[in-house]
Amino acid sequence: MELVETPDAMVAWAERHRHDRVGLVPTMGYLHRGHVSLMELLRPRVDRLVVSIFVNPLQFGANEDLAVYPRDPERDAEKCRLVGVDCIFQPQEMYPEAFQTTVSVGDLTRGLCGARRPGHFEGVCTVVTRLFGLTRCDEACFGEKDYQQLMVIRRMVEDLALPVTIVPGPLVRDADGLALSSRNAFLSVEERRRGLSLHRALLAMADAAAAGEVEVPALLDRARGRLDVDRPDYLEVVDAQTMQPLEVVDRPARALVAAFLGRTRLIDNLAVGPELSWT
Amino acid sequence: MELVETPDAMVAWAERHRHDRVGLVPTMGYLHRGHVSLMELLRPRVDRLVVSIFVNPLQFGANEDLAVYPRDPERDAEKCRLVGVDCIFQPQEMYPEAFQTTVSVGDLTRGLCGARRPGHFEGVCTVVTRLFGLTRCDEACFGEKDYQQLMVIRRMVEDLALPVTIVPGPLVRDADGLALSSRNAFLSVEERRRGLSLHRALLAMADAAAAGEVEVPALLDRARGRLDVDRPDYLEVVDAQTMQPLEVVDRPARALVAAFLGRTRLIDNLAVGPELSWT
Repeated sequence: MELVETPDAMVAWAERHRHDRVGLVPTMGYLHRGHVSLMELLRPRVDRLVVSIFVNPLQFGANEDLAVYPRDPERDAEKCRLVGVDCIFQPQEMYPEAFQTTVSVGDLTRGLCGARRPGHFEGVCTVVTRLFGLTRCDEACFGEKDYQQLMVIRRMVEDLALPVTIVPGPLVRDADGLALSSRNAFLSVEERRRGLSLHRALLAMADAAAAGEVEVPALLDRARGRLDVDRPDYLEVVDAQTMQPLEVVDRPARALVAAFLGRTRLIDNLAVGPELSWT
Repeated sequence: MELVETPDAMVAWAERHRHDRVGLVPTMGYLHRGHVSLMELLRPRVDRLVVSIFVNPLQFGANEDLAVYPRDPERDAEKCRLVGVDCIFQPQEMYPEAFQTTVSVGDLTRGLCGARRPGHFEGVCTVVTRLFGLTRCDEACFGEKDYQQLMVIRRMVEDLALPVTIVPGPLVRDADGLALSSRNAFLSVEERRRGLSLHRALLAMADAAAAGEVEVPALLDRARGRLDVDRPDYLEVVDAQTMQPLEVVDRPARALVAAFLGRTRLIDNLAVGPELSWT
């Protein structure tokens, strides 16, 4: 397994492997089983598997947790080795001098995390486009944990005709149902226990929808009663493809929640109503 | 020579030629010797040469000349054939349904044409990124006629690590000195005669600088006296790399002018002071 630490060296690596099919799992490190599942999903599909580890300042707001985002490069490397990763791209500096380019996506980023974290998706889209360029990857895997991000990246790739196949990876939960996140490391035992209410609130909506409830206000009422958090950020049911809020679940839909436990912001989501086929 | 008329067909073409070195000359058609010089520059550098012809609505303002932009597909095809172009990409529709992605460059687009044509460079950067993706080109040629555009594209390519070498092509003039432009077709005989004053104004600055004048206000005074136009849009001397206005020509600089003759907006530019090496 190679460790590549500069953008120039990444380009040189990509050039050496230009006849291979290259897969990329972009991460901010502090890897957990969710990340590992994305690597395992991509591993058999490609000749060379790259994992990027970079805590991207562009996608953090001024009052967010950039400075304290958890890091553990040695443990990360060990996890990558066990999956058979070929290359870890872990640059200190990601952007060139005089960097000034931004990639932005429109309607899909207006609501949910896009509304609560101004500039977040611009930061994500910009770094992802640059990572695609540096690694020259043919495929890249993004988890459904960040469902809006996944939809935004797919839209961006189609709009810019980027030559990369986006592979969605299922959300991975701990045994108690908590969606895996590097930010779970911030939770106290008590916060973690209450954090389980995000998943329970989503399950209540999915169960009710499966039982025939199609009115979104009624679904949200059920969910709100189950949320036990310090500050809800959003709780919505949206069209699973356009991410526009729904009044009635008459098509594939996604229920999404974001909430604070102490200073830690957790997100989770679940399919509601008819299945969405990834075509 | 192939004619490719949809984005999907362009991707299929690129896939068939993925082991070739592909060059792209992006144009809006109504080709003149300036375009042809770009094709001739790229032809010996690549295995397959693509010319795209698309009048891109994204880069026109609401009150600009999108609707009347000149077109002549048959003459364009003949010119391409004579240079040995392999593929003309001329789509009716460039963008997919629900298209909503924008690529933007910062400081380099704040002044000059960027200030006078809001949204113009976003439109250019977005379509160019998409053209790079659709054609999977290894090299692309942009003329120095659109000097700010050339600098913006180079910046974007470096910032996003797009795997494309940008080849700058020298500005081409008619025998009388008028910079070639598809928009010259709009000029009356009298407007065309007065349009020569753009080049003369730039030459006056370059000559004075070569004779030792380094003060930009003095250079601009000389140029203004020679401009014979209906409405000047801008006349500036900027750092040839950062595009920031200069007070003193103490480094490679570029003089740029834009002006209206009747309803037609012409632009021109010229190096001033020390040579800039394209590295």
